[in-house]
Amino acid sequence: MATSQQIHLVSRPTGMPTHNNFKQVEITLPELQDGEVLIKNTWMSVDPYMRPRMIDRESYIEPFKLNDVMDGGAIGEVIESRNNQFPVGSKVTHLSGWRTAHISDGSDLTLLPDVPLPDQLFLNTMGMTGLTAWAGLTKVITLKETDTVFVSAASGAVGSVVCQIAKLKGCKVIASVGSDEKARMVKDLGVDAVINYKTVENLTQALQQAAPQGIDVYFENVGGDHLEAALNVMNDYGRIPVCGMISGYNNDTAQPGPNNLFFINSKKLTVQGFIVIDYFDQFPEFIEQMGAWLSEGKVKSEETVYEGIENAVNAFLGLFEGKNKGKMLVKL
Amino acid sequence: MATSQQIHLVSRPTGMPTHNNFKQVEITLPELQDGEVLIKNTWMSVDPYMRPRMIDRESYIEPFKLNDVMDGGAIGEVIESRNNQFPVGSKVTHLSGWRTAHISDGSDLTLLPDVPLPDQLFLNTMGMTGLTAWAGLTKVITLKETDTVFVSAASGAVGSVVCQIAKLKGCKVIASVGSDEKARMVKDLGVDAVINYKTVENLTQALQQAAPQGIDVYFENVGGDHLEAALNVMNDYGRIPVCGMISGYNNDTAQPGPNNLFFINSKKLTVQGFIVIDYFDQFPEFIEQMGAWLSEGKVKSEETVYEGIENAVNAFLGLFEGKNKGKMLVKL
Repeated sequence: MATSQQIHLVSRPTGMPTHNNFKQVEITLPELQDGEVLIKNTWMSVDPYMRPRMIDRESYIEPFKLNDVMDGGAIGEVIESRNNQFPVGSKVTHLSGWRTAHISDGSDLTLLPDVPLPDQLFLNTMGMTGLTAWAGLTKVITLKETDTVFVSAASGAVGSVVCQIAKLKGCKVIASVGSDEKARMVKDLGVDAVINYKTVENLTQALQQAAPQGIDVYFENVGGDHLEAALNVMNDYGRIPVCGMISGYNNDTAQPGPNNLFFINSKKLTVQGFIVIDYFDQFPEFIEQMGAWLSEGKVKSEETVYEGIENAVNAFLGLFEGKNKGKMLVKL
Repeated sequence: MATSQQIHLVSRPTGMPTHNNFKQVEITLPELQDGEVLIKNTWMSVDPYMRPRMIDRESYIEPFKLNDVMDGGAIGEVIESRNNQFPVGSKVTHLSGWRTAHISDGSDLTLLPDVPLPDQLFLNTMGMTGLTAWAGLTKVITLKETDTVFVSAASGAVGSVVCQIAKLKGCKVIASVGSDEKARMVKDLGVDAVINYKTVENLTQALQQAAPQGIDVYFENVGGDHLEAALNVMNDYGRIPVCGMISGYNNDTAQPGPNNLFFINSKKLTVQGFIVIDYFDQFPEFIEQMGAWLSEGKVKSEETVYEGIENAVNAFLGLFEGKNKGKMLVKL
């Protein structure tokens, strides 16, 4: 009988999660039924949005259940099949991550396209991460080549793709990151200026110096001080696609917002929240564009890899400790 | 020689302005030149947006100068004319308020249309106030008749028009006001539910009770607690046209924003600041629509009138003390 190692959420974290909130559990998988396949997962994704899912409250996505396996993006290979659509050897993406093996009737599986790209890119630039960056810049707002774009968490999974797309669109790009090493990374991606927010005294001043002409677009991944600085430096009619606000995800009690929201009014700003799910129907257009950029070497897929399901929790916690450059992945 | 009584700003207020920040000054007007007219002002407008103009900082509109007359919307009658376009007896609107008389070469004047409406409506429902409400609901966002609309400062100049337009569009309207008397007023305007924010214990709970199905549109006039409550109760894809944030205008030091801005992301909200100036080109369309509503009795022009230039500062201060129901006007 096949087994699967799974990561369960066993208690709801308050503040920064710890290993005590999670438990690795071995389960025995049932025999395959007609139409089913057994998938050995090879890669899984850990993402900041999973932290709010650990809280038991209504949101756009169901909270994780206690004492049950979590889920998230994953890539795997079919190793046993009773479904003609997915013969043994098929490589697939699906949403049953946080486990080493998965039985499916096929309805939740997408075959990886037959392109000469590493598999894990379909959890990164060619997957939801890339789609998020692309949709945020080209569907939520309309980017103009004259725009000055400020990107927070710029060395992160989404941020590093946002920087590159904005440069490809001809924009001036200012990146905020949390270490000098990450600053070098985003410089290598071609951004025009980098701010290490951990070492600058005043984020607004640093942003003003980097963008004396003001910023037109703020790609919001962080919230808090970053949003405040962006509002201070935004030009009239600036646009703020809101992809996430990671700075608040581990706060036990909600922290107050910026004290300068009035600029939304006086500068006539548009602040627009979005969730990548709403752009799934544009996957074909995205894949065509991103596939071309990748094959022409115009976009680089940055990644940080942890090995083994036993390190999945470490990888997840690392997201909030600034451990990742680019997409955080677990190789199973 | 003609004279004019003018209100000067003589010091920049910190916190709530006082009479000491202002001074009434009598000036002697020069002889009219060819092409000029002398206007006796009959009405002037005081508006919340004038408070931020008393601070010396860059914004969408120039700060008021110290020791100089302020300006703002006004209506007057030509009493001496050397300009054929504006013969004696012409009624005009212009932006040289805060004074009893004004000399103009005509370039800043608009003739009042010849309609059977009280003059002062052109500072209220038929003027910038009405245009602000109308543009915010029909141009900044697109209102649907299925929308539940929450309006803060609902008994104010813009708010009272927003309530009525939203009802005319078939929406459910929930109003927030600061007294029981104002609650009665907005009830008379047809809103579905009223919250007196000064007497409820918890604004979010009150809003949830008034809108168990959630709110789709929040017309933002206030900021602070009102924005926080609205974010808590917004439905997915809700829209927040930001017309103003009066709760912060008299704060000496900027106050922190709501602690739940993350809902902008997770609920996929659009928050859009706007300034009425950007909609001036739509004045003809607006006037036609609003004129029809007024003549059919479908919109009421609420007003609070102070008498005499010597009460102009009292009228202005009254805006922040909740003294006005509807548009605050000074009859000169």
